[in-house]
Amino acid sequence: MKQAIRAAAPLTLFLASMAWPGAAIAGPDTALSIDHLREKALTDSTAWKLVEQLTTLFGARPAGSPSEQAAALWGAATLRDMGFAHAAAEPFALETWEPGTYFATIVAPNPQQLVVTPLGGTTGASVEAFAAVFPTYAAFKAATPEALAGKIAVVLEAIPRTQDGSGYSRAIAIRMNGAREAAERGAVGYLMRGLGTQKERTANGGAARPEKTPFPAFALAPPDAEQLGRLARLGPVRLRLSSSAGWTGKSRSHNVVAEIDGRDPAAKAILVSAHLDSWEQGTGAVDDGFGIAVVTAAAKLVRDLPVRPRRTIRIVWFGAEEVSQPEPVNTFAGARAYAARHATATPPLALVAESDGGAGRVLRLAIGAPENGDLVVRLRSALSPLGVSVLAEAPRAGGPDISVLQATGIPAFRLFQDASSQFDTHHNANDVLSAIDPAALSQNVAAWAVSLWLIADSEDPDPAAPR
Amino acid sequence: MKQAIRAAAPLTLFLASMAWPGAAIAGPDTALSIDHLREKALTDSTAWKLVEQLTTLFGARPAGSPSEQAAALWGAATLRDMGFAHAAAEPFALETWEPGTYFATIVAPNPQQLVVTPLGGTTGASVEAFAAVFPTYAAFKAATPEALAGKIAVVLEAIPRTQDGSGYSRAIAIRMNGAREAAERGAVGYLMRGLGTQKERTANGGAARPEKTPFPAFALAPPDAEQLGRLARLGPVRLRLSSSAGWTGKSRSHNVVAEIDGRDPAAKAILVSAHLDSWEQGTGAVDDGFGIAVVTAAAKLVRDLPVRPRRTIRIVWFGAEEVSQPEPVNTFAGARAYAARHATATPPLALVAESDGGAGRVLRLAIGAPENGDLVVRLRSALSPLGVSVLAEAPRAGGPDISVLQATGIPAFRLFQDASSQFDTHHNANDVLSAIDPAALSQNVAAWAVSLWLIADSEDPDPAAPR
Repeated sequence: MKQAIRAAAPLTLFLASMAWPGAAIAGPDTALSIDHLREKALTDSTAWKLVEQLTTLFGARPAGSPSEQAAALWGAATLRDMGFAHAAAEPFALETWEPGTYFATIVAPNPQQLVVTPLGGTTGASVEAFAAVFPTYAAFKAATPEALAGKIAVVLEAIPRTQDGSGYSRAIAIRMNGAREAAERGAVGYLMRGLGTQKERTANGGAARPEKTPFPAFALAPPDAEQLGRLARLGPVRLRLSSSAGWTGKSRSHNVVAEIDGRDPAAKAILVSAHLDSWEQGTGAVDDGFGIAVVTAAAKLVRDLPVRPRRTIRIVWFGAEEVSQPEPVNTFAGARAYAARHATATPPLALVAESDGGAGRVLRLAIGAPENGDLVVRLRSALSPLGVSVLAEAPRAGGPDISVLQATGIPAFRLFQDASSQFDTHHNANDVLSAIDPAALSQNVAAWAVSLWLIADSEDPDPAAPR
Repeated sequence: MKQAIRAAAPLTLFLASMAWPGAAIAGPDTALSIDHLREKALTDSTAWKLVEQLTTLFGARPAGSPSEQAAALWGAATLRDMGFAHAAAEPFALETWEPGTYFATIVAPNPQQLVVTPLGGTTGASVEAFAAVFPTYAAFKAATPEALAGKIAVVLEAIPRTQDGSGYSRAIAIRMNGAREAAERGAVGYLMRGLGTQKERTANGGAARPEKTPFPAFALAPPDAEQLGRLARLGPVRLRLSSSAGWTGKSRSHNVVAEIDGRDPAAKAILVSAHLDSWEQGTGAVDDGFGIAVVTAAAKLVRDLPVRPRRTIRIVWFGAEEVSQPEPVNTFAGARAYAARHATATPPLALVAESDGGAGRVLRLAIGAPENGDLVVRLRSALSPLGVSVLAEAPRAGGPDISVLQATGIPAFRLFQDASSQFDTHHNANDVLSAIDPAALSQNVAAWAVSLWLIADSEDPDPAAPR
């Protein structure tokens, strides 16, 4: 913690301390008080206040930007004011990328502006060329260099709306690899239909594999992709792309950390997390102000219980989740910095978790623990009233940042959310406060609060260890 | 028609001529054939093809722009190819306004970009100042010059969603007059919540009273207005507005006209219209490609009947409906040019009508004709299956452009549409083809086709004359 910034940000969040009306109630691990914790969470306003203030005060928080830095200092002060221990903003170095100024225009048959956003990590240029239009990524991949040479490659594949987000996951190579694949075959630019399910005219950005070679690459708003498809069926389409996107040098980002000290110093700790940075068009309300608010408000409810949990609970707001780093190419710089800094921290981590799945309701919790064991039975009982089922099997992927800690051998648990509408606002200008349903936010807080208490207070010394 | 352009546009619309399978059917004014006309209209694809091609080929069509000019030439050629008589694009002079490049930024407490669009007719500048934020237009109007001097006036009033569009009509002074009123009291800039009902982050533009004094004036996207409201409650907000909007000189626009010659040369004519120009952000699909498609497809269905209607039917696609003109300040330049050019045309006009009310279903028709008279009885019978009621009373306002002809004493009829969702896309980037519901489009075509036939074929020499 030596390099931590513990600045007093000028605007801090004064959240009324919530008294636990439970003197007459037995310990918090009884059924009665778990019910009380869940019901209290459902009417608690902490999460809404957090995401409202974060998104209103700081707006968009691109990784390494002044707004992300200011939000991190505010975050450390806010966590301290909320009564958490060891609150700090821990800096780490970052190469920063900026979208710059950009446009995409249909030049012929008649001039039209397109709604686009540069793909993160690409380096812009200005080109004018005819379009080579492909309905699917597979058709683009199958195209010969002759079909692409000197053209702007255009991939119009749409992602389906799915409850589990798999429509996005299966399509992510279109964004991660398409620009590079187009450049390798002689194209002079790349346009893809953004990976969004909305009908509105917003372009879904996000990281591509970082490139320093000037090559304009954009995501199109869905209606603009459809417009290009219709126009291409009527005849040749000439396009002009211009982008000053690129790598702007070294900066720093922060992981914001805080703790609830557990009552048993020998027990392994629990880490719960979300990410503070966002893409530049919206205010990162859903992705991932929602996650920040949920895990923090849930931890605050646990902190305000009349007894401390057995295990220490660490809260981490990761910086720089959204962007990739160029040399060497890697992702999740914040999680990597956290893992490196805290590799030998005590107590070690028993379980890690992350909220970064949109703003939908929690549908199920997955944790690698004995089926019909005490913990799973308690979790099922506590979560059932929220419509959350419990799967006694570790999640393969705990979340983007958390994957870095999972890779070091630490088990994860995960609260899976309904992702049906996640990709309406994902990485686009509509990721703002009004995209959050307060009822879904409350349900998430309640699901996290009871899960966090039951997992942190479990008597099993290693509840999710492989056995 | 002497100055008319009758150019052959390179891309014209080849619509299959639709044969009327009615040799065995009595005249088209019988109940049987009116039913047939209505049912045929409901499955006819002409309107969809028209609006699809118009919006796909030409995109946005700001008044006087090359795209509006190209669309007008295409329109005249298309109307001729569809079999209408006397198809032509009739030019008129126009002072043009362009939005230029612009941005609005929150400078403090932390930098944030706002989604805005310049108000039409205003002349931009660059300013930085603190915001004077008002929740309503009334509060802004009540503010003293001291409260506004040196500030950027911000009006956050939201319009309600209404079926009749009255939420917009009642608020239009906020856009038309607010910038001037702010300037008169010493403000240095003006921001208003755009007059839209959407929750998405698009800014609803539209005309303000034309000003040549540099004074930046923007409409905000609804979520950005809410963001400013929340931020202002937390402390002072400093803004920077920059706009190069302004008057760019003289150009020309066109009214596109065509006719179905009536079989009785002595009968007064009917004029049906919509407008061809659009604001610059969307492609003018709803406003007013929808209206162009509806009136044209309905007239085409009437034209393809086995007998000509008694009256001549004039189709007019007005140019330059959206913008105002500066010296002298006036509106509806296209309609004024049409009225001046055709003031002494023969046959004179018995009735005029316009489709410019969004893309909702038709709810009722209003026409000043005798209650329980032959025409109203027939209209009720023909329109009832479409869920359209008939009001035997002239509409006070027939529509924006048509108001110019009404002012010369010509009666109007009007098909009122459901405007509940009109202001979700009105004058913003989401006014694109996907905002049109094909079923509502078909219902409009059917309602217009049967109305047009029955009115045009009415034996009353002056069906809507005041009596």
